[in-house]
Amino acid sequence: MNSYRLLFESEYEDVIEKLKSERDRNITGYYDLPFDSIKLPKKDFQEIVLIGIGGSSLGTRAIDSFLRLKRKAKKIHYLDNPDPVAFKNKLSRIDPTNSLFILISKSGTTLETITQFKALLHYFNLDLSQDAKRFIFITDRDSALDKLAKKYQIEYFSIPKNVGGRFSVLSNVGMIPLGLAGYEIEKILYGAKFFMQRFFAKKETTILKKASFLAKNWQQYPMNVLFSYANELENFNKWYMQLWGESLGKIDAHGQSVGLTPITLIGPRDQHSFLQLLAQGPIDKSVTFLRIANFEEDLLIPNCSLPYLESTDFINGLTFGQMVNEQAKATMKSLKKRNMPIDEIILPCINEESIGELIVYFELLTSSVGALLEINTYDQPGVEEGKRILRETIG
Amino acid sequence: MNSYRLLFESEYEDVIEKLKSERDRNITGYYDLPFDSIKLPKKDFQEIVLIGIGGSSLGTRAIDSFLRLKRKAKKIHYLDNPDPVAFKNKLSRIDPTNSLFILISKSGTTLETITQFKALLHYFNLDLSQDAKRFIFITDRDSALDKLAKKYQIEYFSIPKNVGGRFSVLSNVGMIPLGLAGYEIEKILYGAKFFMQRFFAKKETTILKKASFLAKNWQQYPMNVLFSYANELENFNKWYMQLWGESLGKIDAHGQSVGLTPITLIGPRDQHSFLQLLAQGPIDKSVTFLRIANFEEDLLIPNCSLPYLESTDFINGLTFGQMVNEQAKATMKSLKKRNMPIDEIILPCINEESIGELIVYFELLTSSVGALLEINTYDQPGVEEGKRILRETIG
Repeated sequence: MNSYRLLFESEYEDVIEKLKSERDRNITGYYDLPFDSIKLPKKDFQEIVLIGIGGSSLGTRAIDSFLRLKRKAKKIHYLDNPDPVAFKNKLSRIDPTNSLFILISKSGTTLETITQFKALLHYFNLDLSQDAKRFIFITDRDSALDKLAKKYQIEYFSIPKNVGGRFSVLSNVGMIPLGLAGYEIEKILYGAKFFMQRFFAKKETTILKKASFLAKNWQQYPMNVLFSYANELENFNKWYMQLWGESLGKIDAHGQSVGLTPITLIGPRDQHSFLQLLAQGPIDKSVTFLRIANFEEDLLIPNCSLPYLESTDFINGLTFGQMVNEQAKATMKSLKKRNMPIDEIILPCINEESIGELIVYFELLTSSVGALLEINTYDQPGVEEGKRILRETIG
Repeated sequence: MNSYRLLFESEYEDVIEKLKSERDRNITGYYDLPFDSIKLPKKDFQEIVLIGIGGSSLGTRAIDSFLRLKRKAKKIHYLDNPDPVAFKNKLSRIDPTNSLFILISKSGTTLETITQFKALLHYFNLDLSQDAKRFIFITDRDSALDKLAKKYQIEYFSIPKNVGGRFSVLSNVGMIPLGLAGYEIEKILYGAKFFMQRFFAKKETTILKKASFLAKNWQQYPMNVLFSYANELENFNKWYMQLWGESLGKIDAHGQSVGLTPITLIGPRDQHSFLQLLAQGPIDKSVTFLRIANFEEDLLIPNCSLPYLESTDFINGLTFGQMVNEQAKATMKSLKKRNMPIDEIILPCINEESIGELIVYFELLTSSVGALLEINTYDQPGVEEGKRILRETIG
């Protein structure tokens, strides 16, 4: 089901050609990532400590949370936001003697990441020379971090220069930690490859239809809501938020500020929060419903009736997963009546292939919208100003 | 610091009068909550299981997370979203023999809440008669749940009829579980009362200035970003999201859909995600920076320098808390250069009084904007349609 109006099919070809041209001229390297193979290092450890922020951790977290049920895997501690309370709390739960420390920074000098790393070395009494085997660095070739790795013979992995953080989850950035944690990364990449090929073979024209609608009507619908009906998708929502916001909030080829604002919700929970605004507020949002058709380890709602509460019994005998899906469908129907632009993504189940497909779906959608908006989808020049002011103030 | 343009001071009086009138005519009862005293029941238990969704748990969670550092308290398990994976996972971590189950539903028949409660009874083999002492119900007087409590002699607490879920955290809804968990609720209420009195004594006119700006320019700035620089405020962000979205997305007195859309960020993390959109996208958002001036248990950034990474050393010797605050200030400055409407809320530290004040600040801001938009800030008629469709489909 898809309520986006069909625009001009003739444009689809143009968008695909633009994306192909980005790929062939190496404007961005993310299109090729699912076709690469990842070589995992051999390491002996019990838990992983991942130090990285933004694109260096959001994708890994998205997949890790989504596949939680299938985890035969080693735990990953994420050190992302340098909040003092959270950082201290995490430090107290890490056993440094049994941990592998994976430091991820594309530029090699990300302030929050390097600062946390230095604090780790200090508070855990780690030494780069003696403890070299307990570190892995993932960074751009020839970055400062790359040089540091070489100096101390720390194992390191590179990120293709033309793959930005938010498009890098299927590179070493995500695949090394997830692979080391025990996930079947080849299946994730298989799902990603499968979808990428179908798109370029013009078999996923829904993406083009949707991109075309969103780009043409961005001033009427400047907000795009991703309404995900599963706790397991909460970190995927955060990954999408970066991908969408950082890629599509730009100054376009004509010098005009354009921007599509991502908003993320979790269902059914946020039916008790944000839904009222969708139901009666201005129609300035498109909404994508994302749900999981089958939860492998679902739970039955017992056939139990309580005095005075019989009005809730109509749901008895369904599973929790079915209830969540029915709530998504009902909410979607209620919003369709308002003529909101709505579409739906149904994942068959929670597995590696489906998260691989889902990631590529949103990456290709982002690229398609960006191409139609005539912006550079892959840079982020706007974040430099704050960094400059910070250095001026403190430095 | 506050960059909202001053509008007409003569209007301030009008808004305060409108709010006073809401209070005196009992349109909403939340203005009185900080002046009530809460009587905690005597219960013997190790952990709390709170079953409630939306306004029945968001406020409690916001305070619980914010005060985490000060917790001498008993753990609270939250059963909110009925996601099967998350629900099963939580069940496995609850020890039913040592837990107090607090069931919160204003209407008494919230589907997700009652369903999870029935599943708890079933899977933990609990019995309403025999185990009555292990339950507490918090609900509207004469609701179905209230009747169930009476039937089985379960201890219950009521919610004032004229206090909606999203405005109820300072009532029994939040204060009973937080008090039982060991937090000093009288201090939370003291902070709330202090701020409420100052507002009605016309000593908090910033709120009126801000409300007036937001209401008059809502079409130019339909999105309001709360950029909170602390992990401890992540659940506060969610509470704000419900308060703002559900209160201010409405059909107004003239039949027009109005709506201010809440967007929440965590800093510095989301400087690596959403900031690019703020920095170069359309100026269609106001931004409120929320930060904590002093983290009681702060952590020093060690005076450590690594080869090639010297460019990050300018931050050495600061604490993590200072770094986070400096990043907030630098980002704010960079956005001010774009003439975005920006304001700043600085909490002196993490304690009970400051979260009490903060809650009332946002509640009064919401009421003031609602009054100026000529909407009913306190109802949520738009969420009924989806519920109706669900019943029709399954029932």
